[in-house]
Amino acid sequence: MARAVELGEAARGTTAPNPAVGCVIVKDEQIVGEGATAAGGRPHAEKAALDAAGAAAKGATLYTTLEPCAHDSERGPTCAAIIPEAGISEVVIACADPDPRTAGSGIEMLRAAGIDVRMGPNAAAARSLSGYLTRIMLGRPRVTLKLALSIDGKIALPSGESKWLTGEDARAHVHAERASADMILVGRGTYEADQPRLDVRLPGLEDKSPARALLSRTAEPLEGWTMLRSPTDIMALPVNDLLVEGGSGVATAFLAEDLVDRILIYRAPILIGEGQSSIGYIGLDKINDAHGRWRAVAGEALGIDRLEVYERLRDLDQEG
Amino acid sequence: MARAVELGEAARGTTAPNPAVGCVIVKDEQIVGEGATAAGGRPHAEKAALDAAGAAAKGATLYTTLEPCAHDSERGPTCAAIIPEAGISEVVIACADPDPRTAGSGIEMLRAAGIDVRMGPNAAAARSLSGYLTRIMLGRPRVTLKLALSIDGKIALPSGESKWLTGEDARAHVHAERASADMILVGRGTYEADQPRLDVRLPGLEDKSPARALLSRTAEPLEGWTMLRSPTDIMALPVNDLLVEGGSGVATAFLAEDLVDRILIYRAPILIGEGQSSIGYIGLDKINDAHGRWRAVAGEALGIDRLEVYERLRDLDQEG
Repeated sequence: MARAVELGEAARGTTAPNPAVGCVIVKDEQIVGEGATAAGGRPHAEKAALDAAGAAAKGATLYTTLEPCAHDSERGPTCAAIIPEAGISEVVIACADPDPRTAGSGIEMLRAAGIDVRMGPNAAAARSLSGYLTRIMLGRPRVTLKLALSIDGKIALPSGESKWLTGEDARAHVHAERASADMILVGRGTYEADQPRLDVRLPGLEDKSPARALLSRTAEPLEGWTMLRSPTDIMALPVNDLLVEGGSGVATAFLAEDLVDRILIYRAPILIGEGQSSIGYIGLDKINDAHGRWRAVAGEALGIDRLEVYERLRDLDQEG
Repeated sequence: MARAVELGEAARGTTAPNPAVGCVIVKDEQIVGEGATAAGGRPHAEKAALDAAGAAAKGATLYTTLEPCAHDSERGPTCAAIIPEAGISEVVIACADPDPRTAGSGIEMLRAAGIDVRMGPNAAAARSLSGYLTRIMLGRPRVTLKLALSIDGKIALPSGESKWLTGEDARAHVHAERASADMILVGRGTYEADQPRLDVRLPGLEDKSPARALLSRTAEPLEGWTMLRSPTDIMALPVNDLLVEGGSGVATAFLAEDLVDRILIYRAPILIGEGQSSIGYIGLDKINDAHGRWRAVAGEALGIDRLEVYERLRDLDQEG
């Protein structure tokens, strides 16, 4: 399953609104076929892996990060139908698909066809599918907010000067995050100040530049950009993973609407003192209300800087 | 030597202006005596260890974190004199003493008495003696600035409400830091808002409450408090380790004078947004000038909070 997660993760940022699934077919302890969701969403990972395995699929075990689809589509037969046809005898699924068109029907169809279905370890796969799962369950993309901050939480000097707080390793990490996002969003200030290309500048990832969005109440449409008037406009986007890159006004607007699921802090070992704060009023009037919302889930050194990853503590079952 | 460092570290906060030294005497691979600088500075660690070893000191090896003193005092004979008298045959020293009254003379006296002297590994001992070494080399205490911050670097809401950003584990860590400081300093705002006892509330450490200082240009003298008008007044203090606890005005004043050697950030996993910044204008006018001053040297989880430790990159040889 680890290999299937790896394959799905590599396809992330290219498949929305479809999930980036990974699939591996194993026979006699050998991988006989593997695949991931193709750019644009089709073929599905299972189809790609079955095609790769060919006749070797007979009697093999298929590992997939997400429950095979059970809903008919004009774009091809369901995976829950073609898996038995290929002669697969066992299927291991990391995550059930909350999409109401599948939601258990995929597993049922496989079992009805005489296939042994097991639910596998899902933690890593759930992380890899988190954008898709958020969209299905909350009706909006999973939002990651990225901020480059000083020790004291500033993003710029009073003059607005902000280049560069962080070093090359941190900036390379941002590019990798961009590559796994479907869309990147900035505010008008950041757009005008930086004229950001918001592309992916890592070797080999040039073709993974995500779509770009601009949040502004008043801006004229810009060619090549998705225009949003309010953070809640993200509901309508066919996007699994949205990366919000700033500046402060955009970060504040998304946090005030409680539309951020994950925060990446690229923390530089510098003090700025008087300067521009990273976020403004987000509706907090008591310190006590600030607690229990965020959890530090990871941290790593990036050169002399440090990445801090926080996730919103949210009960999806209650809200979904 | 690790045991000697441990002994010295435990005495920290009680010996200023004397260094908190640890000493261990080893014979036939057994510890036959050990000691640390006593509260108030005397007896010295070597004297305590020799007294503990008694006749067993003959032919033994003495490990000490700091070069034995060679300057006469009304309070007793020098360690460099009593070590040969006790019959010690070998001395291992972690750090040479930069105090000009000793500065190599201790080593010379021991060698002249026929003792084999080796300089041992000094990294851990130097950390343990850092307050004393800073005072001797820079003519002022080593200053640690402590800040409890949100992810976005705020210390309080706009109203001033700041209780509590961090949890119990972080606050217990602060108490341990207080116990190893000789003096704790706050500003008038913090004094008046919190009426801080600034004591040490850890079991077994109640008797290690450090002296207290108040930084204020205008405050009347307070009983039991050392009054400072300006950060530079710390030059005159008989203090090795000074812990600056805030608030923002005090932190800013010390940073603006470049009088901070170490920063402890107790980072809570919360966002505050609009609120009080941790530090104000510290003389920074270009982002580039902020770099190369601080280095992250340690980090650890404290419950749901995280401690970040930064040290000032300073070339003591140039400045001393």
